[in-house]
Amino acid sequence: MDREALMQAVQMRMSERRFKHVLGVEETAVALAERFGESPEKASVAALTHDYAKERSDEEFQLAIDQGNFENKTELLKYGNAIWHGLVGADFVARELSITDEEILNAIRLHTTGAAEMTLLDKIIYVADYIEPGRNFPSVEDARVIAFSDLDQAVAFETKHTLAHLVEGENPIYPKTIETYNRWVAGIK
Amino acid sequence: MDREALMQAVQMRMSERRFKHVLGVEETAVALAERFGESPEKASVAALTHDYAKERSDEEFQLAIDQGNFENKTELLKYGNAIWHGLVGADFVARELSITDEEILNAIRLHTTGAAEMTLLDKIIYVADYIEPGRNFPSVEDARVIAFSDLDQAVAFETKHTLAHLVEGENPIYPKTIETYNRWVAGIK
Repeated sequence: MDREALMQAVQMRMSERRFKHVLGVEETAVALAERFGESPEKASVAALTHDYAKERSDEEFQLAIDQGNFENKTELLKYGNAIWHGLVGADFVARELSITDEEILNAIRLHTTGAAEMTLLDKIIYVADYIEPGRNFPSVEDARVIAFSDLDQAVAFETKHTLAHLVEGENPIYPKTIETYNRWVAGIK
Repeated sequence: MDREALMQAVQMRMSERRFKHVLGVEETAVALAERFGESPEKASVAALTHDYAKERSDEEFQLAIDQGNFENKTELLKYGNAIWHGLVGADFVARELSITDEEILNAIRLHTTGAAEMTLLDKIIYVADYIEPGRNFPSVEDARVIAFSDLDQAVAFETKHTLAHLVEGENPIYPKTIETYNRWVAGIK
């Protein structure tokens, strides 16, 4: 599927507002790919599809978890769209958009939680999602400057601030987010 | 061992300052036990011994982990005294002070991280450690009021604030702390 066709397939599945976010993530991901030596095409496809499944119902995700290949399904089912749309959403991207590149699918899987081990593409999508031009929170300008200077530092910055925000709001924390935090923020290896 | 002998055995193993903290935790734990219907004697023994191993060397803890019965030793070895002194420290209490009451040993094990499932005694020691009279941080008075009104709410309050403090300081987070948070703060069951 070329970029135009992919954009249309994605646009059909989401609100105008979310599609604008997706295009912002793509623009940022391509710029980060050029800055750090990743394939801009891969960055584009991963960015365009990272939120592809975000507007599916909980029932669709629960079915996909039941039928899919996930560790600890009972635990995963306790979480919601915030975790499922990436980790489980990659299965919708693979099945419905015929994307088979595991590097791209994995970047989609990890884009919300991060991971202790992340490829360059994983980091680009994780960070681009946080700093795309439509984002507008107090420290986003700092995050943008860090991202184009040191991607690992940007992963740490985003992880720390996201976790602090989750705790402040008393929201659930998926255990993988703590693996990301312990590796990239606290420096445990 | 009676209370006097236990106090002496504990005092020998720690600084004057830490021993004062231990006596503060005991006073608070006994008051919480009386308030919520736990045995004051059990609360006293668990409180007096909860930090018994805190001044042991990293080498002693590493040896105890190697020789003990712990899940995922490789992971546990990555953490430090902050996690070990409770989780592993209970083994020193059992061995050196001949305390065999598993309820007491478990309250010692969990006193830093909490857990998704906690007994009344676990909660009392976890909370007493946070609010004893020597503690002096901005929200401690709030924590004290909550503790004597609703112990579960106090567990939630302490867990949220401790986690926020760890993130702020970029300190490692032991995965069990997140299980505690998800159960008591975010309400996942």
